[in-house]
Amino acid sequence: MQRTLIIEASKKVGEKVKLAGRIHSRRDHGKLVFIDLQDRSGIVQVVVIPDKEKAHQTAKEIRNEYVVEVEGLVKERPGNAKSNETDIEIEAEKINVLSEVKGELPVDISEKELDINLETLLGHRALTLRNDKVKAIFKIYAEIIRAYAEAMRKFDFLEIKTPKILSSATEGGANFFKIKYFDQDAFLAQSPQFYKQAGVGIFERVFEIGTVFRAEPHFTSRHVNEYTSLDAEMGYIKSFEDVMAQLEKVLAFIFAEIKKNCQKELDIYGAKVPEIKTIPRIKLTKALEVLEKEFGKKVEGIDIDPEGERLISEWAKKKYDSDFIFLTHYPTNARPFYTMPSEDPQYTESFDLIFRGVEITTGGQRIHNLDKLVESMKKHKLNPEEFKHYLDIFRYGMPPHGGWGMGSERIAQKLLGLDNIKEAVLFPRDVKRLTP
Amino acid sequence: MQRTLIIEASKKVGEKVKLAGRIHSRRDHGKLVFIDLQDRSGIVQVVVIPDKEKAHQTAKEIRNEYVVEVEGLVKERPGNAKSNETDIEIEAEKINVLSEVKGELPVDISEKELDINLETLLGHRALTLRNDKVKAIFKIYAEIIRAYAEAMRKFDFLEIKTPKILSSATEGGANFFKIKYFDQDAFLAQSPQFYKQAGVGIFERVFEIGTVFRAEPHFTSRHVNEYTSLDAEMGYIKSFEDVMAQLEKVLAFIFAEIKKNCQKELDIYGAKVPEIKTIPRIKLTKALEVLEKEFGKKVEGIDIDPEGERLISEWAKKKYDSDFIFLTHYPTNARPFYTMPSEDPQYTESFDLIFRGVEITTGGQRIHNLDKLVESMKKHKLNPEEFKHYLDIFRYGMPPHGGWGMGSERIAQKLLGLDNIKEAVLFPRDVKRLTP
Repeated sequence: MQRTLIIEASKKVGEKVKLAGRIHSRRDHGKLVFIDLQDRSGIVQVVVIPDKEKAHQTAKEIRNEYVVEVEGLVKERPGNAKSNETDIEIEAEKINVLSEVKGELPVDISEKELDINLETLLGHRALTLRNDKVKAIFKIYAEIIRAYAEAMRKFDFLEIKTPKILSSATEGGANFFKIKYFDQDAFLAQSPQFYKQAGVGIFERVFEIGTVFRAEPHFTSRHVNEYTSLDAEMGYIKSFEDVMAQLEKVLAFIFAEIKKNCQKELDIYGAKVPEIKTIPRIKLTKALEVLEKEFGKKVEGIDIDPEGERLISEWAKKKYDSDFIFLTHYPTNARPFYTMPSEDPQYTESFDLIFRGVEITTGGQRIHNLDKLVESMKKHKLNPEEFKHYLDIFRYGMPPHGGWGMGSERIAQKLLGLDNIKEAVLFPRDVKRLTP
Repeated sequence: MQRTLIIEASKKVGEKVKLAGRIHSRRDHGKLVFIDLQDRSGIVQVVVIPDKEKAHQTAKEIRNEYVVEVEGLVKERPGNAKSNETDIEIEAEKINVLSEVKGELPVDISEKELDINLETLLGHRALTLRNDKVKAIFKIYAEIIRAYAEAMRKFDFLEIKTPKILSSATEGGANFFKIKYFDQDAFLAQSPQFYKQAGVGIFERVFEIGTVFRAEPHFTSRHVNEYTSLDAEMGYIKSFEDVMAQLEKVLAFIFAEIKKNCQKELDIYGAKVPEIKTIPRIKLTKALEVLEKEFGKKVEGIDIDPEGERLISEWAKKKYDSDFIFLTHYPTNARPFYTMPSEDPQYTESFDLIFRGVEITTGGQRIHNLDKLVESMKKHKLNPEEFKHYLDIFRYGMPPHGGWGMGSERIAQKLLGLDNIKEAVLFPRDVKRLTP
């Protein structure tokens, strides 16, 4: 007999079907055994009566997370039965165990809410990810990356894949992983920055969904050392305003798609999709003033800190009813050498986008003139000799351009209100965590 | 004035527009200067007459690959003009140079066919990728990965992203890159194998489009050391036949989409999209017999070699009129430890898919029983202690499952008939090549 998906079974009342899935939970009432069977399409109650001796015996022995096939009759559920996802139940005739559980389950994942700490959640990841609430994160996550790609194509960006093994550290920083590449030393890409810029010279508009690696020794709720970056780069811009305007459209599309396609998952988290009209933009210097005036917070140095991002986001929510705020014109020495300087060369044509208290995107206009780029490298104490291949891109005519890098996991985290970004990564990597 | 895309200009005959793009080529007829201007949407001829003095002066000075803005009048093209992509031309009034070319272009990329060797093609990649014929590869490539994702979603697979930094080498082989991960040693993922199997335990059907890293010291026309793998893994299969059947459907979808959406790019290569009905399947042992009988070729050892794959593909084309052939039941010691053994345990429930002479996919059924998996590890001389986290996946109930890994670049290579796989990678990595 062919397998029937649970979602299809409700169309087969009165028929015999074969279902396959895992035991979500089990209630043994002595004579009757009730099983909640789950497959990728849903959950259904299976009733096992003593008359079906072999099935009944098996139903007594199996436990949560066993993988089974169930043959049985599809019946309408009695009217007063607690409504589940379906209005049918299965009267089992045969139960065939496909795979057992070895030993005790370290976590009871059939609960609606997993009451466990982060260490346990991540340590038993292959199991805890099966919990319905946890699983919902990754349905949403898949929709974020799907919708991102669809939006970018809609706006005429070409999808590219760029190398992750580089001969030199991308942006001259210290936060890179070193690898042994045959008889050479090499580095893991911190971003596709140089290659997406080359992409502009070729295709005008490009995007990439790819892994980036950051050797940042931070233990925070918003850092992982490997993540999936949603990158874009676009040519023929007038200013970095064009980049922000484009990003607004892309985000509006993504959230509209999530609202349309993931309402069930949003509800599990009581999450509300943010509305995006025009996102307020304020200069970073102005934001620092607001922090001092409104919150009595003095920021040391020139850049905003995580607490500052949280507070300025709070302020934007109150003042503009916006879950987002663009902070613009970061100081030159807080941005990489390729960032386009503003008219006042102390500042840059750049932005960060803050979503519900956390920076999710960094972007701006880039320098597209070879001589200016070399000059900027020197100002940033970098040796142009080491960037020969990057500089070659600018020898052959490059339009004014800009773009962004966006943390896909942070979007999921802030959308669902997850405490830690690691909850939004299937198998996260941090300073100490290389497994599972 | 707002920029108009070239493709939109043909709707604006008689109007003034501003175009922006690069100089594809230029013909200076003394009085008249003709420019082929290219943007992401197409190419159009710009005519510069001496009356427009400043524009004419600029048109005399600019060269190929300069990036410019052109303001001018959209005119219908004289009936006897050589038809280009559009039936209009632009009479220039202003030309504004946005970016110059420094020095001589090392390659004339305005030619239809680039008559250069692979070293030059790859060495000047940021430039040579701008050639129309080269660019077409990456339009096709983007469509391959887009259509793959669409197909997988259609068949109910969830997109996942799995870690690329691992604590141990995935499959116990030698072909991995080692990295320094803070105070630990780590490895770059050769495949998402273990994690996509975990994904089956969670989501039943998963797919991933991700970078894989292979430290293979090969210099061949079909190897790169970093590539984008199209992975899939599916639960509740009856046998590895289900996996092959699924793959057939996915490939049929991808090629149908390419045919629908990329006819122009296919034509540039004179490429024909293969038709996929049921792909012939033969056992590897049978294939080796065919090679000996039909081609007088004796294969040393137990596995087929690249020449053997070419010849068996030729045979499949003649005998079955198929561009594809599945080779099945590889010997146990030619496959990784997690491969499901056949009834005769010398062989496995596995396959390779050959497309026009090159293996593009490897797949099969996996062992889902913990004890059998441990046993198989020992047979393969691996220490189960080192695979603790992988084995944990199988402690909590795992359905019978299987899947594949497919080289996205090889599909593009063989579809377009490219000599070398590196032509199908934007910035390829080989044993010696880490730049550009």
